[in-house]
Amino acid sequence: MKIKAGIIGATGYAGAELVRILLSHPDAEIVAISSVSFEGQKLSDVYPSYKGLCDMECKKQEDVVAQSDVIFAALPHGLSQELAAQCDKAGKAFIDLGADFRLQSEQEYKEWYGCDFLDHDLHSRSVYGLPELFRENIKGKRIIANPGCYTTGAPLALAPAVKGGLVSTEGIIVDSKSGVTGAGRKPNQGNHYPELNEGFHAYKVANHRHTPEIEQTLGKLSGKKVTITFVPHLLPVNRGIISSCYARINDDVTFEDIRNAYEQFYKDEFFVRLLPDGANADIHNIKYSNFCDISLHHDKRTNTLVAISAIDNMVKGAAGQAIQNMNIIFGLDEKAGLIIVPPAF
Amino acid sequence: MKIKAGIIGATGYAGAELVRILLSHPDAEIVAISSVSFEGQKLSDVYPSYKGLCDMECKKQEDVVAQSDVIFAALPHGLSQELAAQCDKAGKAFIDLGADFRLQSEQEYKEWYGCDFLDHDLHSRSVYGLPELFRENIKGKRIIANPGCYTTGAPLALAPAVKGGLVSTEGIIVDSKSGVTGAGRKPNQGNHYPELNEGFHAYKVANHRHTPEIEQTLGKLSGKKVTITFVPHLLPVNRGIISSCYARINDDVTFEDIRNAYEQFYKDEFFVRLLPDGANADIHNIKYSNFCDISLHHDKRTNTLVAISAIDNMVKGAAGQAIQNMNIIFGLDEKAGLIIVPPAF
Amino acid sequence: MKIKAGIIGATGYAGAELVRILLSHPDAEIVAISSVSFEGQKLSDVYPSYKGLCDMECKKQEDVVAQSDVIFAALPHGLSQELAAQCDKAGKAFIDLGADFRLQSEQEYKEWYGCDFLDHDLHSRSVYGLPELFRENIKGKRIIANPGCYTTGAPLALAPAVKGGLVSTEGIIVDSKSGVTGAGRKPNQGNHYPELNEGFHAYKVANHRHTPEIEQTLGKLSGKKVTITFVPHLLPVNRGIISSCYARINDDVTFEDIRNAYEQFYKDEFFVRLLPDGANADIHNIKYSNFCDISLHHDKRTNTLVAISAIDNMVKGAAGQAIQNMNIIFGLDEKAGLIIVPPAF
Amino acid sequence: MKIKAGIIGATGYAGAELVRILLSHPDAEIVAISSVSFEGQKLSDVYPSYKGLCDMECKKQEDVVAQSDVIFAALPHGLSQELAAQCDKAGKAFIDLGADFRLQSEQEYKEWYGCDFLDHDLHSRSVYGLPELFRENIKGKRIIANPGCYTTGAPLALAPAVKGGLVSTEGIIVDSKSGVTGAGRKPNQGNHYPELNEGFHAYKVANHRHTPEIEQTLGKLSGKKVTITFVPHLLPVNRGIISSCYARINDDVTFEDIRNAYEQFYKDEFFVRLLPDGANADIHNIKYSNFCDISLHHDKRTNTLVAISAIDNMVKGAAGQAIQNMNIIFGLDEKAGLIIVPPAF
Repeated sequence: MKIKAGIIGATGYAGAELVRILLSHPDAEIVAISSVSFEGQKLSDVYPSYKGLCDMECKKQEDVVAQSDVIFAALPHGLSQELAAQCDKAGKAFIDLGADFRLQSEQEYKEWYGCDFLDHDLHSRSVYGLPELFRENIKGKRIIANPGCYTTGAPLALAPAVKGGLVSTEGIIVDSKSGVTGAGRKPNQGNHYPELNEGFHAYKVANHRHTPEIEQTLGKLSGKKVTITFVPHLLPVNRGIISSCYARINDDVTFEDIRNAYEQFYKDEFFVRLLPDGANADIHNIKYSNFCDISLHHDKRTNTLVAISAIDNMVKGAAGQAIQNMNIIFGLDEKAGLIIVPPAF
Repeated sequence: MKIKAGIIGATGYAGAELVRILLSHPDAEIVAISSVSFEGQKLSDVYPSYKGLCDMECKKQEDVVAQSDVIFAALPHGLSQELAAQCDKAGKAFIDLGADFRLQSEQEYKEWYGCDFLDHDLHSRSVYGLPELFRENIKGKRIIANPGCYTTGAPLALAPAVKGGLVSTEGIIVDSKSGVTGAGRKPNQGNHYPELNEGFHAYKVANHRHTPEIEQTLGKLSGKKVTITFVPHLLPVNRGIISSCYARINDDVTFEDIRNAYEQFYKDEFFVRLLPDGANADIHNIKYSNFCDISLHHDKRTNTLVAISAIDNMVKGAAGQAIQNMNIIFGLDEKAGLIIVPPAF
Repeated sequence: MKIKAGIIGATGYAGAELVRILLSHPDAEIVAISSVSFEGQKLSDVYPSYKGLCDMECKKQEDVVAQSDVIFAALPHGLSQELAAQCDKAGKAFIDLGADFRLQSEQEYKEWYGCDFLDHDLHSRSVYGLPELFRENIKGKRIIANPGCYTTGAPLALAPAVKGGLVSTEGIIVDSKSGVTGAGRKPNQGNHYPELNEGFHAYKVANHRHTPEIEQTLGKLSGKKVTITFVPHLLPVNRGIISSCYARINDDVTFEDIRNAYEQFYKDEFFVRLLPDGANADIHNIKYSNFCDISLHHDKRTNTLVAISAIDNMVKGAAGQAIQNMNIIFGLDEKAGLIIVPPAF
Repeated sequence: MKIKAGIIGATGYAGAELVRILLSHPDAEIVAISSVSFEGQKLSDVYPSYKGLCDMECKKQEDVVAQSDVIFAALPHGLSQELAAQCDKAGKAFIDLGADFRLQSEQEYKEWYGCDFLDHDLHSRSVYGLPELFRENIKGKRIIANPGCYTTGAPLALAPAVKGGLVSTEGIIVDSKSGVTGAGRKPNQGNHYPELNEGFHAYKVANHRHTPEIEQTLGKLSGKKVTITFVPHLLPVNRGIISSCYARINDDVTFEDIRNAYEQFYKDEFFVRLLPDGANADIHNIKYSNFCDISLHHDKRTNTLVAISAIDNMVKGAAGQAIQNMNIIFGLDEKAGLIIVPPAF
């Protein structure tokens, strides 16, 4: 008997990517999808790629909740809290690809998103779903805050060094570069083909909302408050995020210590591929897959660790990780449906 | 018990794509791969995308033949005939992604490729593996000439009209546009990023080797000799071919007749998606999949049929179709391992 | 004393391109620009590329007319006729980059654009500004209908053959591929980066509004009514149009005759570069410039001429040609301000 | 009387770009070009973009030296020293786009390039040609070391802050992203279209040869030895470099102080465009031009300056700057031939 999965906001990019992956999942099936903008239309009319594969019609949110065992929500922030409460009441699992449950500090949520926590009990029963770092906490939970894209790639690049106390948690710089799908499906001047193509620039420099979320994760790993400088840039490619992370190596720590710590930390993690010395993490190699490739580099002249991760922002940074969380909370093999071979070109 | 598949020429683009698809095939497994250029190296060193998924070492051609039930050969033309003979002798199935067995006229083969048929018996026992058009001939065969990329997309766009005698077979024009992977893995000035990017041009105008192969297929369908004008162009994208095919509609034939003929012809073909009126076949919608999308258009002012097909040159135009052929000759579900959802973006 | 040039609709792509080229024109200067959407804003706020080079503020249409010797209008169709009348009354030259004056048949204009001719006298005094074909008619005129993009590239590819009666005017097929800027500055789903990137498709198959305009030009050259099949496609590049044109070669005409005719026809045309046999016209080589590269190909097997042109849709297909027309009507060197070297990469 | 310019290595990308710009220079003309690989061929056969504009034949190096007043050399490192000596002896100005004269420390040159200084006197009479920082030193010189691409963009982003002592010179991080032309014209696997397209990765992390050159410049400006962390990345675009530079703001320095320092520093520099608060430097806005756009950002939470520059690596990062240096040493207007409007798209 397959898990009945429902998707709310199925016509957005994260929703559409959930569909792509779930269609090949051996133990789950999509039973209902919804979309406010395209209610009553077939998903394959919105995305002709899916013709013959998912010709399901977009219904209302409540239809999805009613029919599903697990509800994936890909909604703008602020819209998930009430929905989570409904799912909770109905005894359904809820996996939120939005931001409402990611920050554990209500004050930070208010500061960066301008909203309040509607139900503190609900928040206390939710969990931050980054499996490689917090797997044990996820098991048994029913409300999952699926991390954002930058907030998956950067912490995975830094986790072993930060958790092991091998680098200074002061002065960490995260310089990230993301493909365009991260900005969503709605056209605007900045994503208009002729203005983005052959272009490249930073945006929301040092004030992107993913900053406190990265800090929260690094803080949990290190046991102390961490403040970072985070600068995202927009790449003229569809998918993928490179996060180049800079941290000062602590005294008496060698680069070999660091490499050993990473190898140990990730040795059982299927979705993290630690690259050999000399290799460079490249979004080319993880596209369409749930992998996070990490390369480690030592700037000997300044004794700085440069840890670089590559993820597909729509998979490990969104839909793939959400399904990984579903697999965990339903007791499936964590890799089920997620052994997607990244194309070589 | 899974079919043992071997790949000769695994480090070329078609070979690498066979690996990608076979890795997820439910009824086949890759047992050996070979490469002249990379013998002794891991495939994942050549294509880091495959790290952890296919770390198999490249062996010699004879090792592949010895260990496999079916041998896929992705070799430059001229190198497959001897290999086919070896496989035949060893009782192995042989699927040739090269050109050696595609043309049934030795004279045409000599004219366009400059080589002879080494063994006429072998040629007579081979079959041209375009399943949607020649499925019944393929069953039971052991030597398969897998069609080229242009030679899959253009015939599928025209087949129902040509077979049904609905259009003139004189004056057919095929204007095709292919992604760059069609030119292979070897770097040259024409495929150097800065010189191809933001560029577009025709090449081998009216003298591309796929011309006689398209004509052979259209000839078989129509029962008469067909000569076409074929002009390929190079698109600055990785994958995909659009073939825009122009044919004069015969007198007393309506466009509705034509649409009906296409619907009838392809009604049971999973991999051919006939688009509704008003839609345009787009490589965006079939990337990484084995689908061939076809849109039909009527130029009323000149009573011309414009039939446009979109395929992924590396899948339906190479590796995917080869696996489809394997499924047929081994009696598997023809779709096994090939229900790949084309990403929406 | 420089010519005073004004641009109406300066913030659209054609308007912005006029600015780019006029800024380096030795004999003209931009005195005023207007924009309905950005009135009161600096052009360099809309296009930061122009910072420090054109920080001029967008005014009203009437300000532009009042201050300029020549008015370039880059407006949606239907809005130019009244403006032309105003300019005419004020004694100003008017160069229309829109479609209102391009078709000489009011019936065709009504059929394809749904509008009437407001003032027949005005229309009778306007001229179709494709200098290489109609230079003598342009001299002395004050109302210029600047051709569209497809309608420049395709006729230039075919003109010598059609005018010389070397090919049949029946069954001509024009398969064009255009960069995205042709669709303008306004974002929409089809031009949204992730949905166009790595995609390619035809659009408005056999019903694009440029069809009658191409036919009008070929009709004038051949002296008889010409009906063509015209299919445009959208290329994932910013600029450039390739038009691949197919025409049956008349009996008793050799390909050498055709080449000679082209060489003769274009021998004094600076902006048309006839490529040698074996070369292929490529948008890569004409980007940002006013050149039209043409390559000629002979399909010997079907005796078909394949004539392929490459232009920059925003330059020779819009702003550059408009300035070429300005140069002609003001008696300047036709090349003034237009000897722009296309970048090698 | 125009300056006679010669180009050695004209068929490489930097050489070809020199041709593009010099063809429109009002006070200089190209009199001779050379190329080892293409001797005897026309430049327009190598770059068909230049057909009709520069059909000059590639000669030998000595022909160029003999005929020119100024010799531009775009050669692999190690080949310029002897050539410089020849030019010097012949009384010709020499502008080296290679690396041989950039580092003033022979030890660093040996360490990073593995070569020695052949003639110390020659080196002592050469000058590092970054006009905005060292203009006064350049005047009157005849041997110019034209800076590299990264080594132009990063120092310009940091110069006012470093020179003014407003930021710490310890812990500076430069995270750069360059278009592909920076890697030159020779095809290789890494620049092969299908493997770079839709990809992005770092390379030569913390060991790129431009590191000591950036440090040399920052050292001169600050008056003390500076060591930085420099990480370049490869962008899937043809042109442009973004350098995102991170530096800790010194105590008692406000961000307003910094902005004021930049405005003061660059107030008379035509080619540096300091963007207003809220804007982001973008390679889209400087393509094909000699501009360097700079945006300044304050990370208040960590009191870090993020200074981001955008240049065209082939213009301000190579050929354009070389011509700017020519203008200076020949006493021309520094902007002559360099007021190139960056296209809006």
